[in-house]
Amino acid sequence: MSGAAPPRRVAVLGVGNMGWPMAARLVGAGFDVAAFDALPDRAARFAGEVGGTAAGSAASAARGADAVITVLPTSKHVGEAIAAMGDALSPGALLIEMSSGVPTATRGFAEALAARGVSTIDAPVSGGVPRARTGELAIIVGGEAADLARADPLLRAMGTTVTHVGGVGAGQAMKALNNLVSAAGFLIGAEALLIGQRFGLDPALMVDVLNASTGMNNSTQKKFAQFVLSRRFDAGFGLDLMVKDLSVALEVGRETATPTPFAALCREMWASAATLLGPGQDHTAMAQFSERLAGETLGGGNRISG
Amino acid sequence: MSGAAPPRRVAVLGVGNMGWPMAARLVGAGFDVAAFDALPDRAARFAGEVGGTAAGSAASAARGADAVITVLPTSKHVGEAIAAMGDALSPGALLIEMSSGVPTATRGFAEALAARGVSTIDAPVSGGVPRARTGELAIIVGGEAADLARADPLLRAMGTTVTHVGGVGAGQAMKALNNLVSAAGFLIGAEALLIGQRFGLDPALMVDVLNASTGMNNSTQKKFAQFVLSRRFDAGFGLDLMVKDLSVALEVGRETATPTPFAALCREMWASAATLLGPGQDHTAMAQFSERLAGETLGGGNRISG
Amino acid sequence: MSGAAPPRRVAVLGVGNMGWPMAARLVGAGFDVAAFDALPDRAARFAGEVGGTAAGSAASAARGADAVITVLPTSKHVGEAIAAMGDALSPGALLIEMSSGVPTATRGFAEALAARGVSTIDAPVSGGVPRARTGELAIIVGGEAADLARADPLLRAMGTTVTHVGGVGAGQAMKALNNLVSAAGFLIGAEALLIGQRFGLDPALMVDVLNASTGMNNSTQKKFAQFVLSRRFDAGFGLDLMVKDLSVALEVGRETATPTPFAALCREMWASAATLLGPGQDHTAMAQFSERLAGETLGGGNRISG
Amino acid sequence: MSGAAPPRRVAVLGVGNMGWPMAARLVGAGFDVAAFDALPDRAARFAGEVGGTAAGSAASAARGADAVITVLPTSKHVGEAIAAMGDALSPGALLIEMSSGVPTATRGFAEALAARGVSTIDAPVSGGVPRARTGELAIIVGGEAADLARADPLLRAMGTTVTHVGGVGAGQAMKALNNLVSAAGFLIGAEALLIGQRFGLDPALMVDVLNASTGMNNSTQKKFAQFVLSRRFDAGFGLDLMVKDLSVALEVGRETATPTPFAALCREMWASAATLLGPGQDHTAMAQFSERLAGETLGGGNRISG
Repeated sequence: MSGAAPPRRVAVLGVGNMGWPMAARLVGAGFDVAAFDALPDRAARFAGEVGGTAAGSAASAARGADAVITVLPTSKHVGEAIAAMGDALSPGALLIEMSSGVPTATRGFAEALAARGVSTIDAPVSGGVPRARTGELAIIVGGEAADLARADPLLRAMGTTVTHVGGVGAGQAMKALNNLVSAAGFLIGAEALLIGQRFGLDPALMVDVLNASTGMNNSTQKKFAQFVLSRRFDAGFGLDLMVKDLSVALEVGRETATPTPFAALCREMWASAATLLGPGQDHTAMAQFSERLAGETLGGGNRISG
Repeated sequence: MSGAAPPRRVAVLGVGNMGWPMAARLVGAGFDVAAFDALPDRAARFAGEVGGTAAGSAASAARGADAVITVLPTSKHVGEAIAAMGDALSPGALLIEMSSGVPTATRGFAEALAARGVSTIDAPVSGGVPRARTGELAIIVGGEAADLARADPLLRAMGTTVTHVGGVGAGQAMKALNNLVSAAGFLIGAEALLIGQRFGLDPALMVDVLNASTGMNNSTQKKFAQFVLSRRFDAGFGLDLMVKDLSVALEVGRETATPTPFAALCREMWASAATLLGPGQDHTAMAQFSERLAGETLGGGNRISG
Repeated sequence: MSGAAPPRRVAVLGVGNMGWPMAARLVGAGFDVAAFDALPDRAARFAGEVGGTAAGSAASAARGADAVITVLPTSKHVGEAIAAMGDALSPGALLIEMSSGVPTATRGFAEALAARGVSTIDAPVSGGVPRARTGELAIIVGGEAADLARADPLLRAMGTTVTHVGGVGAGQAMKALNNLVSAAGFLIGAEALLIGQRFGLDPALMVDVLNASTGMNNSTQKKFAQFVLSRRFDAGFGLDLMVKDLSVALEVGRETATPTPFAALCREMWASAATLLGPGQDHTAMAQFSERLAGETLGGGNRISG
Repeated sequence: MSGAAPPRRVAVLGVGNMGWPMAARLVGAGFDVAAFDALPDRAARFAGEVGGTAAGSAASAARGADAVITVLPTSKHVGEAIAAMGDALSPGALLIEMSSGVPTATRGFAEALAARGVSTIDAPVSGGVPRARTGELAIIVGGEAADLARADPLLRAMGTTVTHVGGVGAGQAMKALNNLVSAAGFLIGAEALLIGQRFGLDPALMVDVLNASTGMNNSTQKKFAQFVLSRRFDAGFGLDLMVKDLSVALEVGRETATPTPFAALCREMWASAATLLGPGQDHTAMAQFSERLAGETLGGGNRISG
């Protein structure tokens, strides 16, 4: 498939919070976009407000498309969309799976589609809605080099960095594992700050010392002072999304038979926090979970009653 | 004690791997150093090779000293040294506890000594033997500002950064908590790289991606490529020292009644690794523990037989 | 399907270590057994040595059978067997899934088969090969009461206790969760005995005291003295089988979105042990994993070198 | 000291919830009891209502006593009581430490007292206030056989089983380790029941199945149906006391350098529950902690809002 012409007709399945601005970037870059969404009227609104055409079904969107982009909640939805497209996803087409899906599920889709002459790459994104709007997403891609080359013009319209990390599924695995390391760094930071504060240290000063030493990580640099000690808890990445990525990371661990006790506890604690703190939380609210186990608020210095 | 003259006579208790080069810096800076070591002849060798005087006992070293510096293996040794000095540690003197001791123990020493007119600060160091030799240690200090001011000329002879983080014991607590965050970042990194490698990702590439994203931490930046993937395991900080610091961090957690599940598991896994891997290991060999649980070597790609 | 005649023709898919003696019990009870196994000649050997007929394929075994019993390694194999049987598994037949499979997978099979008029129950067993031979297995069953009634004569030929715990999949879930509680009881027992022994307590005496107090569990009663302190490690249930059941339990937890930090760590430690200790281990060898982390053998009192 | 006459004069330090009925049993058995309590009037009330004499200080109670029994909150209080008694605790006397203290601390007391000719045994109890009243406590004893023989008449007045498990401190270690195994059995049981319930199993039925299989432990037999599913949570042993024993167990682990990841997580989760649930809880309320992490109440089947 190397040397194939770049895609011109693009179906985007899922024009929700993320899919909408991503598809809008494609329209803006001159691609012929057919949008579909499970929510009635959503695609029509997109076509009316942004451009392109609204499709009444995934199959109708996919028919004649050079590339189909999925931006859906889970791999289960992606599987259903593939089933719904049926033969409308035709030989020679390229599926670009941009959801935060399960890498092994994506591999399964890719194998099944390959038998029908459809190529697949996975291309999960980071940066949230703001960077989706400005086309500055960070995109991590898994797939064959030739397929990646075909997708490149589309990806460049949506993101500023496109990093190729391996075969199909590798992008989603890498994204989930990155968030695993990030989540662990945040959690241990919260616990360390709580121990220190109860011993009498100032948490803001502790953050500074960590950042000047080997305790430095992304959370000590960009999250604790900004979102926890300030009690703002509005970093812009949801607690539920972090839990989802941690679950994906651990599922890859399970399917590759890789025992990882520390990662497993990390996931369970984040998932526990999501239950205990309730829906709609920013991921930095995870610190409140540690605070409740320890009975003290970071920065405030007040004891929490039981 | 504010406004007191800076120390001129300094006792150094413990001229081992770290204490020797630290004391040498003091001699080089013109201080009148009396060295003592539990190992016979060690102090005499120091006096012969470096300068200052060799003392036959802790008490003899301390007599007449403006400041007594302890560089000993554990708080237990510090307690024994204080007992051994008895009244030779006289009113107006300053104890500078530079071991990686237990903060609550240090607080206890400080309280007992305060009753006799002796001030205490804790000033644990980072940087290892190389930076001890060049006087470029990073020193984290806990104590009263006036005592810190008195100690400043001594500390400046040994280190380039002196960070005051709180009352007595705060330096040791901060150092241990920094290493807790560092150790957790290393451990989760090792587990994440193993999961990824078994899924088919290249660990060296994964490290690069982590460093460009929210998974970044001190270990992803300075340890995995350099000491793990290279199979060198020679970062220069011992596995046993890391376990010791983690134990101190958790002991502060226990004494302040701060439940920290993630930190507790972190400590246990590092301590387990120290047992399983045996003595004399660099702390980056911790990755080998995760490799043995997962049955695969990072970078090498070979399965480890059971 | 209630009131249907009891099964007379029974297909058994999988006549391996467990399936062979189970099928032999059915032959002995007068059922008309058609055996199939993926291993060539295995079914023929069974027919020759025990009785019944050997089938050349799953479909051929299933054709005309009132009940099909699966005794296979994993749910994946069960799914493949169902696909291989195709229409040979005919309306009115009953699938009795006796593998240690994944409950949610079994539910999926049951739903798909129900559409074709085939009923499913799951009936995993405990007791190992010895009790399979004597027909004294403990069988935990999930499914509709009517289907269970039909299966009852078959189950009674193989086991002495048949416990109905809920709908399809409930048997497998219950079995896995029972082993989760058992595995945790063993692991904490091993750790407690190690702490005690290193403090100076006699582990055999400790086991007695636990059994007389609230620390009592199945492992303190039937495993530590018998298989660990004796260094025999031959309870007869494999470490790999325990890990498999723990993985099933945690997968049910994940699919029901139930955060369980303690159970998750339990599974990871057992899975780590299976890797570290290598294949072919009895599940009581798990104690050796804790011994290696602690550097000491239970009962022997010898330190293990690193 | 073997062959010494049995104690007649007995000091009891601490006549609180437990100490009062224990001392009352001694009075009833004809011993000459001198009671002391840190709470003013408490000892006088005891002497008035029960008998014996009230002492105005620990020293006054100890003077002339053959045996001194401590029933105090922590080892710290025991150390203070020993200091307060000074020489009133005279050569030949026997200290019977019946608090749930720290074994290594008790060893330290014993060593210091031995130098003054005072013997020590530790004899922590189980059974709570009800069995203290009836003299049916279970007593686990550590110490020398000769000292134990001397204490026997006193212990027999308070308990029905007296189990000698090793040297000084062994009783307290054994008691804490027993509770560690018990606490882990409870916690894993709660998690397993939650997973099962969310899959659709009935928790009461699950408890029955566990009790008939290898998942059986003291909690499945005597706690889940009785105190959790009934929502009574009144087993009579406090959550704070369990956390204290778990902390003792882990401290013995730390001081003997025994890495035990599973036990460590167990302690942290119980300690976290004590903080989250607040003071005054029965230890069976631990199930509510797991329920809150999982978002569902056992038995009730209602989802807990965040």
